[in-house]
Amino acid sequence: MERFDQLLATIIERRAADPSVSYVAKLTAKGRAKMAQKLGEEAVEVVIAAMADNREEIVSESADLMFHLALLLADAGLSFDDVRAELARREGTSGIEEKAKRAT
Amino acid sequence: MERFDQLLATIIERRAADPSVSYVAKLTAKGRAKMAQKLGEEAVEVVIAAMADNREEIVSESADLMFHLALLLADAGLSFDDVRAELARREGTSGIEEKAKRAT
Amino acid sequence: MERFDQLLATIIERRAADPSVSYVAKLTAKGRAKMAQKLGEEAVEVVIAAMADNREEIVSESADLMFHLALLLADAGLSFDDVRAELARREGTSGIEEKAKRAT
Amino acid sequence: MERFDQLLATIIERRAADPSVSYVAKLTAKGRAKMAQKLGEEAVEVVIAAMADNREEIVSESADLMFHLALLLADAGLSFDDVRAELARREGTSGIEEKAKRAT
Repeated sequence: MERFDQLLATIIERRAADPSVSYVAKLTAKGRAKMAQKLGEEAVEVVIAAMADNREEIVSESADLMFHLALLLADAGLSFDDVRAELARREGTSGIEEKAKRAT
Repeated sequence: MERFDQLLATIIERRAADPSVSYVAKLTAKGRAKMAQKLGEEAVEVVIAAMADNREEIVSESADLMFHLALLLADAGLSFDDVRAELARREGTSGIEEKAKRAT
Repeated sequence: MERFDQLLATIIERRAADPSVSYVAKLTAKGRAKMAQKLGEEAVEVVIAAMADNREEIVSESADLMFHLALLLADAGLSFDDVRAELARREGTSGIEEKAKRAT
Repeated sequence: MERFDQLLATIIERRAADPSVSYVAKLTAKGRAKMAQKLGEEAVEVVIAAMADNREEIVSESADLMFHLALLLADAGLSFDDVRAELARREGTSGIEEKAKRAT
């Protein structure tokens, strides 16, 4: 299984774990707002690492960002395949560039 | 090729394109700060979509987030494999949960 | 009237204006999520300016941040005096430092 | 003295305090990146509170945001008067609305 999918599968499995031992279960118990907050915070850290041009930090914070994105997708009953399908759809119809332009 | 890797490969290819026709080339020309800004903005939109519990928007904004994360990784000479290696390293040594706890 | 309060008073006045001519009315018409998004985006720009150590940009982006914070406070029926009261409350009871520590 | 100015004055005074007892001194010692990160994180919390439409939280998180904005301004040798001057300049020349539109 691809690594990001594996990450999400692990997260889904741990959502039902004991919140006192599992970070995933703990954050899940705190609810959607806390998960969204963590994702926002990790993105800020990627921004900081990118501005500092610290490659090691960019990798580390990107891993944290992917982790919390997976956590959020799992909470919404979604997967990375849904995200991949959206990217494929954009590329398929009129090129990813145009879609990115419209979306941003 | 896995979809996210394909996205990054396309981005690398388009970095050298004409900024007047390519969004990737245009943002690349604007420099690191603008790329970091866009990633931060897309993360805010994922946060908003997550709080609104709009699954379609979560998928769409997550696709935008992955796109701009790929753009930033490319600019730093990094790839999703670097992020995967970091996630694997965390899981390998002492379990992803502990690492996530320490990292956040 | 203090400048930030004046800004908020102007915003309250313009909320009822024609959205085709007033930015305040336009953003108000788009709703809370769009206002929250703009505040998040402006904060990202302050972060970028701070990392780039560009004083002119820090001032400019901080002005944008204050503008969108005022817009959000107005939308929630709040004012800068509510924020000032909270800061005073923290300082009054046990010192702003302790409170800041607990809050963050 | 106006409350936000007083907050900034207190922060300037505490920057030179012992980092083991003062949150301001501790964050100042950690440097610009950490201060920028905290500002970004507090903005994310305002976004979350605004989306949850929790007025008490909006006030509390806005106070945290103002605190960390003051901390950042102090670190850059700036004050809220610099931000007020920028807002006044925008209003003076062609109306705050137009400027806001251009700036965002």
